Amino acid sequence: MSANRPSPKSLAIRSETWLLSRIAAIASKSPASSVGALQLGMGDDAALFRPRLGTEIILTCDWFLEGTHFLRDKHPADSVGWKCLARALSDVAAMGGAPRCFLLSLALPISETRRWLTKFLRGLRRASRAFDCPLAGGDTTRRSEILLNVTVIGEISQKHAVFRSGARPGDLVYVSGRLGEAELGLCLLRQRRGRANFRDSHLRKHLYPEPRLALGRWLAEERLATAMMDLSDGLSADLPRLCKASGVGARIEADKIPAVRVPGRGRGARSDPLSLALHGGDDYELLFTISPKNANRVPRAYRGISLTAIGVITKKRGVLLVDSLGQQTLLANRGWDPFRTRMK
Amino acid sequence: MSANRPSPKSLAIRSETWLLSRIAAIASKSPASSVGALQLGMGDDAALFRPRLGTEIILTCDWFLEGTHFLRDKHPADSVGWKCLARALSDVAAMGGAPRCFLLSLALPISETRRWLTKFLRGLRRASRAFDCPLAGGDTTRRSEILLNVTVIGEISQKHAVFRSGARPGDLVYVSGRLGEAELGLCLLRQRRGRANFRDSHLRKHLYPEPRLALGRWLAEERLATAMMDLSDGLSADLPRLCKASGVGARIEADKIPAVRVPGRGRGARSDPLSLALHGGDDYELLFTISPKNANRVPRAYRGISLTAIGVITKKRGVLLVDSLGQQTLLANRGWDPFRTRMK
Repeated sequence: MSANRPSPKSLAIRSETWLLSRIAAIASKSPASSVGALQLGMGDDAALFRPRLGTEIILTCDWFLEGTHFLRDKHPADSVGWKCLARALSDVAAMGGAPRCFLLSLALPISETRRWLTKFLRGLRRASRAFDCPLAGGDTTRRSEILLNVTVIGEISQKHAVFRSGARPGDLVYVSGRLGEAELGLCLLRQRRGRANFRDSHLRKHLYPEPRLALGRWLAEERLATAMMDLSDGLSADLPRLCKASGVGARIEADKIPAVRVPGRGRGARSDPLSLALHGGDDYELLFTISPKNANRVPRAYRGISLTAIGVITKKRGVLLVDSLGQQTLLANRGWDPFRTRMK
Repeated sequence: MSANRPSPKSLAIRSETWLLSRIAAIASKSPASSVGALQLGMGDDAALFRPRLGTEIILTCDWFLEGTHFLRDKHPADSVGWKCLARALSDVAAMGGAPRCFLLSLALPISETRRWLTKFLRGLRRASRAFDCPLAGGDTTRRSEILLNVTVIGEISQKHAVFRSGARPGDLVYVSGRLGEAELGLCLLRQRRGRANFRDSHLRKHLYPEPRLALGRWLAEERLATAMMDLSDGLSADLPRLCKASGVGARIEADKIPAVRVPGRGRGARSDPLSLALHGGDDYELLFTISPKNANRVPRAYRGISLTAIGVITKKRGVLLVDSLGQQTLLANRGWDPFRTRMK
């Protein structure tokens, strides 16, 4: 409520039931194709759905917390709504699956239950429609800071899921898109005072990431990817995870990494393209490995998203970075880790 | 880390990977019967499992936040671990389902990643084993306050789920157990300074609630309950929700409500048994309705948990409370609502 002049009405309607009814409005406006499969959405103890025959269920959940993952005064509420779902969907993409529905856990101050919530729900609904993933249920509570947790439920044909653990020595290492764009977008957002220019493509990638669902499904259905994960914390954090899960190492070439194109002005240590590409988070591109015999089946781009081979999986553990002079160095993990790095 | 003398080692190991490995240890110690069904647990982008033929999937998520749902200095970490899972499982019980697995989202300060986390995980593991519900995945991050969100995935035979919406005029209204015990336990916890006496049964019910999974399944499998939900916010908050979902009203009798037995001392406005039973939260008992023709099939107790008819569903909306003199009053909702009430 407003600290100045709370009206009795505004006090009365801010109950959890009232809030749930506002959120439930999303469910009723969700994509029709998926809602039919949901037996029950908001308003009961739990959501219920019938899995399709011959499928496996994918489960993933993601924190999205004010101060840690977004800043209330910098990130538009609409972007917070879009991104909290998009980044959880990226985990489904990374398994090769299709989204089925999601659960939203929302905690927020009463002061944000009007304007902020309206915009937040608008962004969330846009993402829900764009990625054909209806809201199935959730939980709300009051809190001084805005806290979000999103659970996404996906589906995939039996035995088609792609894990982090399938990379074998000799496999080629690929990434989709350009790396470091979202990090550059975050830099731009921080530098600005007042309203950001949302036409900037880097800023858009930071605020409204697009999970690579179609690409992930194609790589899984065609049984092309031997291992896959999404790039959420930066290549230098995520590639070692894939290697560790597979019990292998990797050697990647700096010159091959499709790095963000940094505009002429504003260059500096923090906006070196290679650094941004190696250590920048939030790109939500896919990192995957391909057996050499299948390399000719991987196009240069899939539905407009570039696919680039950046190196090879090695038997020897550790991730090596080869520079343009052929010098090899061990790739240091300087990606995002909430226990070592902070947004603020 | 200790604020006094942080050792280099303790700093180094507090990465998200390290934390995840500690949590993953739960997964490996989870009940064997369920783990077999999980294709993949911690350590990949998402969890994966194969649904059993002829079943529907139940999904539910629950906040459990320091300051809102528990107090770090009052609630033992072991209880926080137990309760965060138990209360989410209660939603599965309320649908009549069986738990399959859960996801844990955990945010906590580095200072709590040793002792507190160890005890928390111990309580969580105990609940995971007691209710045959293994950990399948999750997300962790750093935060100044302890934040928890638990998603539980359950299963139920097709078309057997019990909703809130099935109550019909004439149906009898039942509750399991005694109501208000957990609220009295919370009062005891608040009054105490220092270590609480965990042998007190009310305190135990507040700290270590038992979701009524076996009862819920039995009521669903036997097709006895026409509507069902769990009592998490208090009868005066939850019964109106069931009635609203069913498009009906209810008339309950004060004398029939199985209220907490308050010990002789310490009585007062806040420990009136009827008030505690009507408005106390956190009982996680089941509220359900039974067609009159099936009333003789409902025993007085199921596996040691009493089942009590407290009233009847009416065509006329609104929930009426009949006192011992036969006077009817509209039952006011004074149960838990995070947007109106606070724990602190």
